[in-house]
Amino acid sequence: MAEVIKGNAVVGQSGGPTVVINQSLVGVIEAIQNMPAVNRLLGARHGVRGIVDEKFVDLKQIPQDTLDAVAATPAAALGSTRDKPDQAYCEKIFSVFEKYDVRYFFYIGGNDSADTARIVNQLARQAGYELRVFHIPKTIDNDLRVTDHCPGYGSAARFVASAVQGDDRDNASLPGVKIDVIMGRHAGWLTAAASLGRQDEADGPHLIYVPERPVSEEKMLADIEKVYSKLGRCVVAVSEGVEDTDSKPWGTKITETVEKDSHGNVQLSGTGALGDYIAGLVKSKLGVKRVRSDTLGYLQRSFAGYASPVDQAEAREAGHKAVEYANSGDIDGSVAFERTGGGAYYGIRYFLANLADVARETKNLPGEFLNDEGNGVTDGFRKYALPLTGGLPKIGKLF
Amino acid sequence: MAEVIKGNAVVGQSGGPTVVINQSLVGVIEAIQNMPAVNRLLGARHGVRGIVDEKFVDLKQIPQDTLDAVAATPAAALGSTRDKPDQAYCEKIFSVFEKYDVRYFFYIGGNDSADTARIVNQLARQAGYELRVFHIPKTIDNDLRVTDHCPGYGSAARFVASAVQGDDRDNASLPGVKIDVIMGRHAGWLTAAASLGRQDEADGPHLIYVPERPVSEEKMLADIEKVYSKLGRCVVAVSEGVEDTDSKPWGTKITETVEKDSHGNVQLSGTGALGDYIAGLVKSKLGVKRVRSDTLGYLQRSFAGYASPVDQAEAREAGHKAVEYANSGDIDGSVAFERTGGGAYYGIRYFLANLADVARETKNLPGEFLNDEGNGVTDGFRKYALPLTGGLPKIGKLF
Repeated sequence: MAEVIKGNAVVGQSGGPTVVINQSLVGVIEAIQNMPAVNRLLGARHGVRGIVDEKFVDLKQIPQDTLDAVAATPAAALGSTRDKPDQAYCEKIFSVFEKYDVRYFFYIGGNDSADTARIVNQLARQAGYELRVFHIPKTIDNDLRVTDHCPGYGSAARFVASAVQGDDRDNASLPGVKIDVIMGRHAGWLTAAASLGRQDEADGPHLIYVPERPVSEEKMLADIEKVYSKLGRCVVAVSEGVEDTDSKPWGTKITETVEKDSHGNVQLSGTGALGDYIAGLVKSKLGVKRVRSDTLGYLQRSFAGYASPVDQAEAREAGHKAVEYANSGDIDGSVAFERTGGGAYYGIRYFLANLADVARETKNLPGEFLNDEGNGVTDGFRKYALPLTGGLPKIGKLF
Repeated sequence: MAEVIKGNAVVGQSGGPTVVINQSLVGVIEAIQNMPAVNRLLGARHGVRGIVDEKFVDLKQIPQDTLDAVAATPAAALGSTRDKPDQAYCEKIFSVFEKYDVRYFFYIGGNDSADTARIVNQLARQAGYELRVFHIPKTIDNDLRVTDHCPGYGSAARFVASAVQGDDRDNASLPGVKIDVIMGRHAGWLTAAASLGRQDEADGPHLIYVPERPVSEEKMLADIEKVYSKLGRCVVAVSEGVEDTDSKPWGTKITETVEKDSHGNVQLSGTGALGDYIAGLVKSKLGVKRVRSDTLGYLQRSFAGYASPVDQAEAREAGHKAVEYANSGDIDGSVAFERTGGGAYYGIRYFLANLADVARETKNLPGEFLNDEGNGVTDGFRKYALPLTGGLPKIGKLF
């Protein structure tokens, strides 16, 4: 066995929370109790911000029942951050790591966080400081490269699928056109999940629009009119980041005043503008009387009590694996999943990916998961995503 | 035992659906199989609309596994309607009832539906037509008089409480001000339920605004500033029907173009306007940087897979009871609940209320359920409402 360096460890959580990000945190806390090389496990309050501000909580003596309750609780129990460290920020991190004799850094987050982990790791190597850095993926967007899927996605997909499944029954009860706006700035994985509760062709969502397939107003309206004239109703799932044919997001065009977060992303969540706009179009251009829109909003990443059991178990195990890798010698990386089994069977194996391969760039929905018309998903997508939800409610119908 | 008239029965669903309205429908279908006086059970497609259009489905031969699946499915399996019958409409209903030898009418709906049932019943009596009319309550608004609570409310309350509980953890992870707009035009029962997942004073929602307690912009902003300066964050739950101190709804003031449904209610759901407006106020007037809003929307009444088990059982039993009452002689009315037990115990008994006592007027949150400042609820409310949710997720914290 390779040499295991002695010292302390830091764990942090970053980016938009999920309902299973605490599973991974608890996975790290649990596993590190069996890693004698680590003396103290310091939880950084609000990610890298807590490191530079030296705001830590000791995590080695938490009772198991508290850990289990924390694991089942949505969002980041240590607090999260949107900070993306630059060179100076990273140097500050090092000086704190040196001061606290930190030799292991576990960072739970999305691709921005993988990038942070990569930069910190690089600077550590350049400085000749022995530091082992492990990124544990989390994102409801499911847009990290290399890994088959990301912890957090299965639960968000379960929420979105159940929401749209119920909403479709509501729309069948009181027919009209319903627009559901779903999170996803660049990748349509979560919006695609709206399809997972469908049980037959008449079930909604009847149309799905994702950022990977730009769509004009004219095309979307023509699609809606076609479904509406056939079924007398239509449920539409649309990504908040849906783009027009000139590759400009609809949201950017619509929202007059845009707010930017510190990563330069345009702020689209937390507003009903896109849904209201599309609903208005359908009313005015198609003359449909009953048109409603919902923006599913932050519930998609934070709803309590409805996580995917598969996602919960995998996120916890991802935390365990990160510590296992840390305990096995001088390696760094990002915990990743590879799918095993096939056909009706679902399984994954864990492996360690290179940080550089995961950081920054996003993974879009591949072409084979999207239909030719650019307004729906394929059975291939459903076979990929359904197991991640842990199963969905069954619909009963009288006719 | 009183005479039980022989003939056919009609069952229908009306108004905004809930996730347990099909439980009551299935309750009627199940129980009527043991009522020999009823020959056919006709399900009216889209409520009274289906009666006047003679669009019926026979419901006596549905297999139990289908019934169980339907019962667990959100929204109205028969279809719903917003029609509110006037005199001519009711006369049409009678002619159809006579044509089909309908002697029992089970109508599942809110206070508008109780009113419909009352009018139909009155006209039947005036016409000397023997008809027994049973209203089975359903509304997420919980605003029917006489009954302790309404089927549909417990599940919607469970959804809202879990949503805001998770959202509050999200807000604690990435601090700021969060506005959650919750359904309820005239009564604040559902918005009040946002409080049910709180476990200590620091948990949100920190402020709750309901239609029963008009609030000015100045007062709301002062409240938010107070919480924000103390906790560094603030989660606000606000009814879509919240009123200004001049008793005008905020939504009416904000929305330039309002849409009215056929009952003359102003349309507030399905738009993010109110939440966006309050978020904008907090940003501009208080200078808070991170402000977000969500409008919980139709998910509150339709989300699949997360119904309250208590609500499900009660809604099913309400259907059974309606048939039991129908089978016991010449009576009419609305199925109602009375709470039994006390202290830590929860139980209900069923009784039959007068239709006239239930119809039309809404029941507001009583004063003892609201705090003196008009920005929160009391422990009395939580004791009343928590058992209806079937229990809520527990929050785990590390510090």
